[in-house]
Amino acid sequence: MIVVMSPQATEKEVEAVRSKLLKKGLTVRLFRGNRGFIIEAFGDGPQILDMALEIMPGVEKVISPLPPFKLVSREFKREDTLIRMGDQVIGGKEIHLIAGPCAVEDKVQFLEIAHAVKEAGATFLRGGVYKPRTSPYSFQGLAEEGLAILHEARAQTGLLIVTEVMDPRLVPLVASCADILQIGARNMQNFPLLREVASVDKPILLKRGPAAEIEEWLMAAEYLLLGGNSKVILCERGVKTFERFTRNTLDLSAVPVLQRLSHLPVFVDPSHGTGKWWLVPPMSKAAVAAGADGLLLEVHPSPCDALSDGQQSLTPENFRALVGEVKKVAEAVDRCLPNCLAAGL
Amino acid sequence: MIVVMSPQATEKEVEAVRSKLLKKGLTVRLFRGNRGFIIEAFGDGPQILDMALEIMPGVEKVISPLPPFKLVSREFKREDTLIRMGDQVIGGKEIHLIAGPCAVEDKVQFLEIAHAVKEAGATFLRGGVYKPRTSPYSFQGLAEEGLAILHEARAQTGLLIVTEVMDPRLVPLVASCADILQIGARNMQNFPLLREVASVDKPILLKRGPAAEIEEWLMAAEYLLLGGNSKVILCERGVKTFERFTRNTLDLSAVPVLQRLSHLPVFVDPSHGTGKWWLVPPMSKAAVAAGADGLLLEVHPSPCDALSDGQQSLTPENFRALVGEVKKVAEAVDRCLPNCLAAGL
Amino acid sequence: MIVVMSPQATEKEVEAVRSKLLKKGLTVRLFRGNRGFIIEAFGDGPQILDMALEIMPGVEKVISPLPPFKLVSREFKREDTLIRMGDQVIGGKEIHLIAGPCAVEDKVQFLEIAHAVKEAGATFLRGGVYKPRTSPYSFQGLAEEGLAILHEARAQTGLLIVTEVMDPRLVPLVASCADILQIGARNMQNFPLLREVASVDKPILLKRGPAAEIEEWLMAAEYLLLGGNSKVILCERGVKTFERFTRNTLDLSAVPVLQRLSHLPVFVDPSHGTGKWWLVPPMSKAAVAAGADGLLLEVHPSPCDALSDGQQSLTPENFRALVGEVKKVAEAVDRCLPNCLAAGL
Amino acid sequence: MIVVMSPQATEKEVEAVRSKLLKKGLTVRLFRGNRGFIIEAFGDGPQILDMALEIMPGVEKVISPLPPFKLVSREFKREDTLIRMGDQVIGGKEIHLIAGPCAVEDKVQFLEIAHAVKEAGATFLRGGVYKPRTSPYSFQGLAEEGLAILHEARAQTGLLIVTEVMDPRLVPLVASCADILQIGARNMQNFPLLREVASVDKPILLKRGPAAEIEEWLMAAEYLLLGGNSKVILCERGVKTFERFTRNTLDLSAVPVLQRLSHLPVFVDPSHGTGKWWLVPPMSKAAVAAGADGLLLEVHPSPCDALSDGQQSLTPENFRALVGEVKKVAEAVDRCLPNCLAAGL
Repeated sequence: MIVVMSPQATEKEVEAVRSKLLKKGLTVRLFRGNRGFIIEAFGDGPQILDMALEIMPGVEKVISPLPPFKLVSREFKREDTLIRMGDQVIGGKEIHLIAGPCAVEDKVQFLEIAHAVKEAGATFLRGGVYKPRTSPYSFQGLAEEGLAILHEARAQTGLLIVTEVMDPRLVPLVASCADILQIGARNMQNFPLLREVASVDKPILLKRGPAAEIEEWLMAAEYLLLGGNSKVILCERGVKTFERFTRNTLDLSAVPVLQRLSHLPVFVDPSHGTGKWWLVPPMSKAAVAAGADGLLLEVHPSPCDALSDGQQSLTPENFRALVGEVKKVAEAVDRCLPNCLAAGL
Repeated sequence: MIVVMSPQATEKEVEAVRSKLLKKGLTVRLFRGNRGFIIEAFGDGPQILDMALEIMPGVEKVISPLPPFKLVSREFKREDTLIRMGDQVIGGKEIHLIAGPCAVEDKVQFLEIAHAVKEAGATFLRGGVYKPRTSPYSFQGLAEEGLAILHEARAQTGLLIVTEVMDPRLVPLVASCADILQIGARNMQNFPLLREVASVDKPILLKRGPAAEIEEWLMAAEYLLLGGNSKVILCERGVKTFERFTRNTLDLSAVPVLQRLSHLPVFVDPSHGTGKWWLVPPMSKAAVAAGADGLLLEVHPSPCDALSDGQQSLTPENFRALVGEVKKVAEAVDRCLPNCLAAGL
Repeated sequence: MIVVMSPQATEKEVEAVRSKLLKKGLTVRLFRGNRGFIIEAFGDGPQILDMALEIMPGVEKVISPLPPFKLVSREFKREDTLIRMGDQVIGGKEIHLIAGPCAVEDKVQFLEIAHAVKEAGATFLRGGVYKPRTSPYSFQGLAEEGLAILHEARAQTGLLIVTEVMDPRLVPLVASCADILQIGARNMQNFPLLREVASVDKPILLKRGPAAEIEEWLMAAEYLLLGGNSKVILCERGVKTFERFTRNTLDLSAVPVLQRLSHLPVFVDPSHGTGKWWLVPPMSKAAVAAGADGLLLEVHPSPCDALSDGQQSLTPENFRALVGEVKKVAEAVDRCLPNCLAAGL
Repeated sequence: MIVVMSPQATEKEVEAVRSKLLKKGLTVRLFRGNRGFIIEAFGDGPQILDMALEIMPGVEKVISPLPPFKLVSREFKREDTLIRMGDQVIGGKEIHLIAGPCAVEDKVQFLEIAHAVKEAGATFLRGGVYKPRTSPYSFQGLAEEGLAILHEARAQTGLLIVTEVMDPRLVPLVASCADILQIGARNMQNFPLLREVASVDKPILLKRGPAAEIEEWLMAAEYLLLGGNSKVILCERGVKTFERFTRNTLDLSAVPVLQRLSHLPVFVDPSHGTGKWWLVPPMSKAAVAAGADGLLLEVHPSPCDALSDGQQSLTPENFRALVGEVKKVAEAVDRCLPNCLAAGL
């Protein structure tokens, strides 16, 4: 931390800052510059926040050259985090497709989708059973009944299950069924929930909050790693902007930014990121070209009849076509799809 | 709901839309316009969402002339909601000041602030004991120890207590101490938490999420009213924008907008809304001039030493001066401060 | 400027930075901190930008404790800038109301509005004759015919004229008629236009761009002062955000921020800032409570028939009522309206 | 246009709306729905804006099923616009690379870059000679001296020249040298400038404004087509959001959105879109995967010494590597780079 004192700062003011920094256990050095004093404070770890130094008399500016996160950073861990689940490895050369409907609505229908996305090349199956809905009048998910359907779908297809948990009280129940626990965008900074899932031995897919800066997002992931769970997948899903044509503005530059700042794998959700099914294929290809380690895609056999997110859902046929296109882009950037061969692509 | 069909829509497509609307239990009328068919669907209640009509073949545009919320709307309840607590009434002519530190840090210090803000004219005392912090390395609050301090402060000063609850599991505990339960900005769409506090017989202060449109915010309040709690105070605290000088962009036009759309009282938090203590007085006056029913203000005896939000905290002296200034503006808009006389202002 | 070198930076890298700073004519000092080298570079003026130091090898962070603007800053000129025009002084204790229709549409109608707003207390008359319109199919203004109407209105009422100029080629023509030249939001960074109006001896009302940070806005004003025109009024008119209920999000905290950073007077335009006429009175009062030096208000005798901005226009009756309300708030913050007595308020 | 009247609207109010629509020359039909009256108004062309119908008594909602633009729309012209220049075709199967420094700084250096980018596969050469700079103290471009250098570079390399024009008075001069005239982001709604370039027989590269919705951007393009110039290239360059890590947030979903709404070719500028040179390669690949028809890239032989935008400039070596990578992605989406063979890629 560097504190730049104003040229008008008195000795007393300089001393007050120095003394405050020393009390925090930091090593402090004082330099007399041409304009005024410069104070360097040095410690280990990211604890040295929240000091309100900026409002101390005589302080002109405070700079923290180090990022506020630690365990999630590339500095802390150079090599990419690989998450192994059965035969699958997330974060390596293979790009994973998590596909399925927004919500589990019906057993027969869900199993049909599960088989369809598997055949088309998906390695993970998504389906919400606890749904965060803007309106209390919207379909809120099948809850436990839905969990049983997820179980059945895994048993039948062998696909690994990704599903959202919203309530810290339900973490053990949902974790007993899910292979990856999803933390939704609106819960990115739900700290009791983060603490709860941090203690579970399952990978976490942490979606970006609609107003979250990349740094805040990484701080949320830091809660998970600090809580003991280092199997974290970051998932870009669009941010809230003034543009009204798309549901959100998909920030694909977050992918290479995160890969530089952190060692964690990065997925992209172009369904929520755009809100329109016909934008999903081009943005899926773009995500892969930008370096994404996986995609989260909404697929529904009859989008017009979906109880949620119909507008952004692909039909199984569209999903199958998308897999073929994504495969080519993946190869153009030296990546591959894990089930390509199986899917005959 | 009005569905505008494309001039090219076939009879079959028109029929498919009509039939889908009928299945939802709506009364449907079909008009042949000069451009194409227009379909009116009419039901009661806000249930008719999530139909993905826009992606049905032949549909050009769908319009919902009614807002998606109901219980919170002015249409549903014409007169202002008044919340009575002891001698105080929120939502009436009196403007309430909720003041206190960001977090309860220490018993002696907190009691000192409590007395100071009471003397200066506050009717409610704030202080967080469970703190949502961006960084896991930041001070997270005193938890139960803090609740005991809040109890003590109320006993000594008679001020009503406002404190945040983040975890649905802790709602009963926090509710046993707080007079008003605060739902923080990051939890505005934490639906399990909303459902839990909805079942408590205490007023709820619902902060606006940093990326929440006014409509989404009112939908979150709708969860509370639908869950049985109609004592809801909405609190504007700034939204996330590109402007970097202030911590958030305080959207004061939300105050008159909410008062037109809804019957619920509206407060403003200029401390979080600006992030700088010297912006709090002008923005407090502006909030009152815009029609706010109350203010939520951070006050700390030694902002430089605060464990959180020091930069945006007023000293007790500054708070006292602010009350005097706010009082004048309140009177200019035919409102008043409840404890003005007691405070000798 | 402070350059924080990485702990891993080599001597050569440190030397390269030092040498680059020296070449720019800066005084450079080098300190060996506990983490790594810290370089202070000191010069005068804001010229030391654009050095791309961040991408030099070994550089960790670059901090500029000084703002990038100079002539507009409070540091450069302590006392408030007062702009005297006839009997009126802008930037002093008096709060000025600039009122009139979005566009001059018709001579008879415009003169009628002019008289009405004067009687109600306005000191300046607005009316666009060159209109920046999103759509090429919208009414583009009466051009020279409109200028003649503005002349006539001034002659009849004595009100000073505020009108927008968009084209650098038309600056002399518009300046021959206007008392204050308005630079619209979309032209805030139209540098050829800024350079042209800077050379005119008339006050400039510089609106904030819809995506302009406060610092960028002050830099645009710096172009004017550097070009020789120091009679600049800054006008907040809302920024572009995700909120869709209002046309823009009026950022009233910009008012006290600008007054701290700069010596220039600050006006607010709640008509464009909200886009709805019924939001104009509360936001006008809020603007004055926040410290605004004036208001820019759209008034039209028949808003439903206005050729532009009808939705946000006040009727003369509503304007008159607003003046009475604003007057009370002005007095509550120790300000006054110049024509109150004349208007019998 | 569909006007939904409130169920409470009186006959007189319905009649007032009907009569206003008739006066505008529209064909009007009135339907009695279950809730209230529905009015359909039908005309040709996008002229029916600005009617402030929303504030007429009894009106509940107004819907315009048609977009406000016409000439730029896919409905107006089904097939893609192809722009032919010499041997090159923009908007077809080939993806074009426009490369060069932010600003022309020096003749020898510029010619060196020109040769380098040509060898690496660029088909167009960029270089600003009139620079829109946030600060008046920043380098403002070489002006006419720079134009001469652009001439020379074209003569030597055969590359076509893309350069920005900011001032309507300089359009003839700049057009005498440039092959494509660039309208910068800050001038997207500089209507006098748009009108001026519309009358020139050269293609226009129209950058998106930092706060421009896609619809507003297309309306700006509509000015050009309506003014007689249909050779318009749209260029996404990032929008202003709350995210601070990148200079702007590159909105790649704009590419497929524009291609659906309009027939105009779409380019992407990942240099301004990200502000960091190391993000340019992944975002270039993503842009091509999303369907972009070309890229605008900043290349500088010594980014640390660039007089502007050094942080986002590629070295010629990095540019050459990028071309190789982009080529592979282009082929994966059935596109190609025009000079691949020449560049030996």
